[in-house]
Amino acid sequence: MVNIDQYLQEKRGIINAALLKQLPDQAPSSLSDAMRYSLEAGGKRLRPILTIAAAETISEIDDSIVNLACALEYIHTYSLIHDDLPAMDDSNLRRGVPTCHCVYGDAMAILAGDALLTLAFATVACYGQMEGNATKAAEIATQLSEAAGMNGMIGGQVLDLEAEGKDLTVQEVERISELKTGALLRASVICGGIAAGAAESELGKLKIYADNIGTAFQIIDDLLDCEGTTEELGKPTGADLEKAKATYPALLGTVKAREKAIELYEKSIIAVKELKYDTEILEGIARKIIERKS
Amino acid sequence: MVNIDQYLQEKRGIINAALLKQLPDQAPSSLSDAMRYSLEAGGKRLRPILTIAAAETISEIDDSIVNLACALEYIHTYSLIHDDLPAMDDSNLRRGVPTCHCVYGDAMAILAGDALLTLAFATVACYGQMEGNATKAAEIATQLSEAAGMNGMIGGQVLDLEAEGKDLTVQEVERISELKTGALLRASVICGGIAAGAAESELGKLKIYADNIGTAFQIIDDLLDCEGTTEELGKPTGADLEKAKATYPALLGTVKAREKAIELYEKSIIAVKELKYDTEILEGIARKIIERKS
Repeated sequence: MVNIDQYLQEKRGIINAALLKQLPDQAPSSLSDAMRYSLEAGGKRLRPILTIAAAETISEIDDSIVNLACALEYIHTYSLIHDDLPAMDDSNLRRGVPTCHCVYGDAMAILAGDALLTLAFATVACYGQMEGNATKAAEIATQLSEAAGMNGMIGGQVLDLEAEGKDLTVQEVERISELKTGALLRASVICGGIAAGAAESELGKLKIYADNIGTAFQIIDDLLDCEGTTEELGKPTGADLEKAKATYPALLGTVKAREKAIELYEKSIIAVKELKYDTEILEGIARKIIERKS
Repeated sequence: MVNIDQYLQEKRGIINAALLKQLPDQAPSSLSDAMRYSLEAGGKRLRPILTIAAAETISEIDDSIVNLACALEYIHTYSLIHDDLPAMDDSNLRRGVPTCHCVYGDAMAILAGDALLTLAFATVACYGQMEGNATKAAEIATQLSEAAGMNGMIGGQVLDLEAEGKDLTVQEVERISELKTGALLRASVICGGIAAGAAESELGKLKIYADNIGTAFQIIDDLLDCEGTTEELGKPTGADLEKAKATYPALLGTVKAREKAIELYEKSIIAVKELKYDTEILEGIARKIIERKS
């Protein structure tokens, strides 16, 4: 029986090292300082861990997959930096520390975000230049750019900005959540599967797993925003309610929202159990997602 | 003898159509409107034309190279949108029309830029998923991400922001110009060469050509900023002098700066003439770069 906390901690350490190792050091120091600051500000590293865990579930992995997995965290971190800007969500605190623009100014935060997004695709390109990886890299870059782009994360952020103060249906909230959060979480799992050479039918099961944990993750996020404290979360809480953002708890109530998260968790477990591999790690990660307190 | 003006006009038409065709239409309409607005605001399409011209010089090309070439214009357009933001250069006019953030607001301009950068890599990934292109796509994505990233265009923008009001040497001005403008122009040429299957030695000659026209392009840009009118250029002029930005004309004087541009043009011609192909188009483009009035 795997100790999932130990697994997550170990992978987090490996990813943290790889994240910084791939930052080129010739760049202007103010820029790499800003990038490093946001990367080092912590975070659960859920996305690259999912990439590695999905890959490990399918086959043995090497360092190239750890490096590739960093692309997911670069994209996630860039999106946080840009979302926090005064022109966007205007947040001063993230992961328990002042946000990038509060420390480095708006211009540098915009550029640090741009550079992290670019670095994500440089990382995939680097993976693709290794023997035998080119075709997989093209598929991974397609998945990543779809998940991050105008019909994925960026599209979701636009809908979210436009939804402020409006009454939304559950379907509309689900759509925003799927685009803002679900798309990149799903890509994290799928990219790991592709890198490990998963068959089409296996990718299908990984996709169902990822879709369900993606929505569950967002529901728990919303619940923590209602119920958690700033100290626990490392970012201001109650912000969604204050801005009248439509969230699952706001629409369904906290009890029904939590029930929905558990239901989605169970669906993710059923999907992943259909794989012919040992899926204990992927199941453990799903469980941690609905049990998390921050 | 090729009519270079006719060539440029024809390619511009082909590129303009391809640029919009690759914008996915499911995205939130406000986002795709902002992206389309900046793409349609005009521009010489120099970068994708260089990609196509370099590829055509080496071998026969098909539509996949035209689509690929759009990646260069997506990156260029994203960089203009972000550079124009109030937090950066704070420009209200670009290509003769109000800048993206003036029309769509800062948040949407940030997201439209992010989406165009992502679309650039989606475009390369799509090219890479076509039969026989995967290895070339990995090389192209590497070139593009280096040219656009923290050691290329973004790094140059950081140095440029940090240089305002400081006295720079010619070497420092050259370094900023090489990063901000030269890197992406060079990548435009190189990516076309890679897509057309150019040999390493041929890519070397294309690189020298591109390096020289890249710097020449920047010198002419600076000269136009000193000498041109807002009407001719479609953007405010004299802005560099006002901000005490170190430019070639400011450092060398306009006469010596123009002489340097011509010298670089001549070097670019020598390099490209060493290729065993008909290089009339590439030579014509170099000539247009130093003759341009806007």
